[in-house]
Amino acid sequence: MGIIVQKFGGSSVADIGKIKNVAKRVVATKLAGHSVVVVVSALGDATDKLVELARQISLTPPEREMDMLLATGEQVSIALLAMAIHELGHEAISFTGYQVGILTNNSHTKARILGVKSERIMGELNRGYIVVVAGFQGVTIDNDITTLGRGGSDTTAVALAAALNADKCEIYTDVEGVFTADPRIIPEASLVPEITYEEMLEMAATGAKVLQLRSVEYGRNQGVVIHVKSSFKDGTGTVVKEEDEGMERPIISGVTHDSNEGKITIFGVPDRPGIAAKIFRPLAAANINVDMIVQNVSTEGLTDISFTLSLDDLARAESVIKDIIAGLGAKGYNTDTNIAKVSIIGAGMKSHPGVAAEMFDVLARNGINIQMISTSPIKIACVIEAGQVKTAVRELHEHFQLSEEAITRETI
Amino acid sequence: MGIIVQKFGGSSVADIGKIKNVAKRVVATKLAGHSVVVVVSALGDATDKLVELARQISLTPPEREMDMLLATGEQVSIALLAMAIHELGHEAISFTGYQVGILTNNSHTKARILGVKSERIMGELNRGYIVVVAGFQGVTIDNDITTLGRGGSDTTAVALAAALNADKCEIYTDVEGVFTADPRIIPEASLVPEITYEEMLEMAATGAKVLQLRSVEYGRNQGVVIHVKSSFKDGTGTVVKEEDEGMERPIISGVTHDSNEGKITIFGVPDRPGIAAKIFRPLAAANINVDMIVQNVSTEGLTDISFTLSLDDLARAESVIKDIIAGLGAKGYNTDTNIAKVSIIGAGMKSHPGVAAEMFDVLARNGINIQMISTSPIKIACVIEAGQVKTAVRELHEHFQLSEEAITRETI
Repeated sequence: MGIIVQKFGGSSVADIGKIKNVAKRVVATKLAGHSVVVVVSALGDATDKLVELARQISLTPPEREMDMLLATGEQVSIALLAMAIHELGHEAISFTGYQVGILTNNSHTKARILGVKSERIMGELNRGYIVVVAGFQGVTIDNDITTLGRGGSDTTAVALAAALNADKCEIYTDVEGVFTADPRIIPEASLVPEITYEEMLEMAATGAKVLQLRSVEYGRNQGVVIHVKSSFKDGTGTVVKEEDEGMERPIISGVTHDSNEGKITIFGVPDRPGIAAKIFRPLAAANINVDMIVQNVSTEGLTDISFTLSLDDLARAESVIKDIIAGLGAKGYNTDTNIAKVSIIGAGMKSHPGVAAEMFDVLARNGINIQMISTSPIKIACVIEAGQVKTAVRELHEHFQLSEEAITRETI
Repeated sequence: MGIIVQKFGGSSVADIGKIKNVAKRVVATKLAGHSVVVVVSALGDATDKLVELARQISLTPPEREMDMLLATGEQVSIALLAMAIHELGHEAISFTGYQVGILTNNSHTKARILGVKSERIMGELNRGYIVVVAGFQGVTIDNDITTLGRGGSDTTAVALAAALNADKCEIYTDVEGVFTADPRIIPEASLVPEITYEEMLEMAATGAKVLQLRSVEYGRNQGVVIHVKSSFKDGTGTVVKEEDEGMERPIISGVTHDSNEGKITIFGVPDRPGIAAKIFRPLAAANINVDMIVQNVSTEGLTDISFTLSLDDLARAESVIKDIIAGLGAKGYNTDTNIAKVSIIGAGMKSHPGVAAEMFDVLARNGINIQMISTSPIKIACVIEAGQVKTAVRELHEHFQLSEEAITRETI
């Protein structure tokens, strides 16, 4: 009898009725002959409410205490789901991240999973219990509670699937799977039935909200096939897995965008070795993830360095930059929140040169100026003005013929 | 530098403003030169809200899952209080019951503390941190979360004071201390400045809500002096401690009442050895606390057995009785929720015989029928009709001259 890990996000457990529905779905999986481990997020907007409580006390609460607070959200969910399963006449037992030994580093609010102990879960599965585990949380070696960052429950599910050597890892969410673009902007966007870890990583990194980036990394590193499905509709969903011979694959898998980034530019930086490290090491030390970095060609020994990062980190990054700017000998800095990032992703790009040129051409034809460019073998990302992002996504989606009717696929 | 344990109940942390006030009070204690450990309950009605969520799913949720759910209430409080202390410029760190090693048995929803590990707290106190601990919760040897029953945060505070060998254990509450009767019924009731553990135990057992009974037991067993004070008003409060020579002590310390009990009577029970055990062993196994037990004189080999218990346990007790009644050979049973218990408590009773007769006389003069009687060396408790309880308390309080003006004390 194989193990299935099923993860349900906050919108899938937003109220008591939905929790009861999840319980039914989980019991159905159990009755189909599987051992079931369920990972759940906090109820609907519970996490936002907790954040708001903290804000009323402090704008800069200690991150350890923030994790202590936020971890309660999932603990409420697991207890209620276990009760709902029990009410259907089946045995269930809930566990916090600490209780199942989801060991993390001590980067509070965005901790990384170091390992998972599986003994307690295996014991409960072996005596026929459905095991309900709190997503999003772990514990340090010092027994301090940590959280894994927004979307961290996905990573919990994938990590458990790896540790338990599960047959399947199903991520139930409020969308039907991965689409060729955000369906709220492009209604004719089509569902992607299969996608490689690498493409999914690029998609997650460039704005697709379906899976947390780290869960995909974890899946790739541990070889866990991730199946994204809708909590509310039946459907085939999207399978995220290793690239293989028979995989149907288009040149471009999708167009993504991210309107939640800001840009910081440091002007007149003396252009000498080690200067970039002086900027980005303190940012890394403050646990701030920098996305794109562009350094201009130097004139008269001075250069400008721009980088993008999540708007959530902008204020903290600005205070880091303020502290170091004099030491750099730079002339000054500014911040820009009026930007967005649009990207095209596709493993097929590797064998089709010229895709980047096509993208730049589409943007130019629509009067969209490119502020920054970043590329990988399977991705091209451009920073543009925020107000032009919908046009950019629409025109790129159309140009690369990604809609349901127009879709062209080739097997490579 | 001595350690002070301060406990604040739910009404003291009912909203963000009150949490900030508790933070100020705690910081003031720290600035006065003490090491401070703070124990907090869940915010205001947070526990009731969680219970209501569970009720929407199940009327008989597994108790382990109920504890998993309820323990989140205090976890929210400790995180917010630690943030509020931090915002005042002081270092604070919060801990759940598990993290500080409050080891309990596995009687979920009313667990008993077996021991407390103090290393982690001592370490944090030694580096100057204010330590904030979740009341009401513990952990079993299997790492399952338990709760200690309503009012359990008092016991957490006393247990920590004992384990840390604290100088003081202060219980801050929404009343000014222990009174000679419930001030909501007797406005002229007077504050009791000092009381023995034994008297306090009898008071808690007979309806005084100020301290959880088990916290007093724990204090007596470990020799922890408990100081009950108001969160909102300055005042001397009530000190609960060992009886000593110089202690000022009245014959009667107070009149208590409890309207939250019900009565079960089993009729026509064959009067033979072992029959009481057959009734009360299964009730104990179901973790139901029985209060008073009365067995009538036997007629024709049959007797009636009545007992009282908390209304919260009545439904469960009834289902236990249903299961065993045929095996007992009894004729039937009934339940009565229209009762109340009125008690007088005083260590001075031991050297003043005739107090019981006085109590019965006062009740008789006021037309109050006594249904059951229970006595100890320092207490007399009577079960009466629910509607007569206020009259009983008022008349007894007056007869024994317990009001502020009338109070008579003698040193014995």
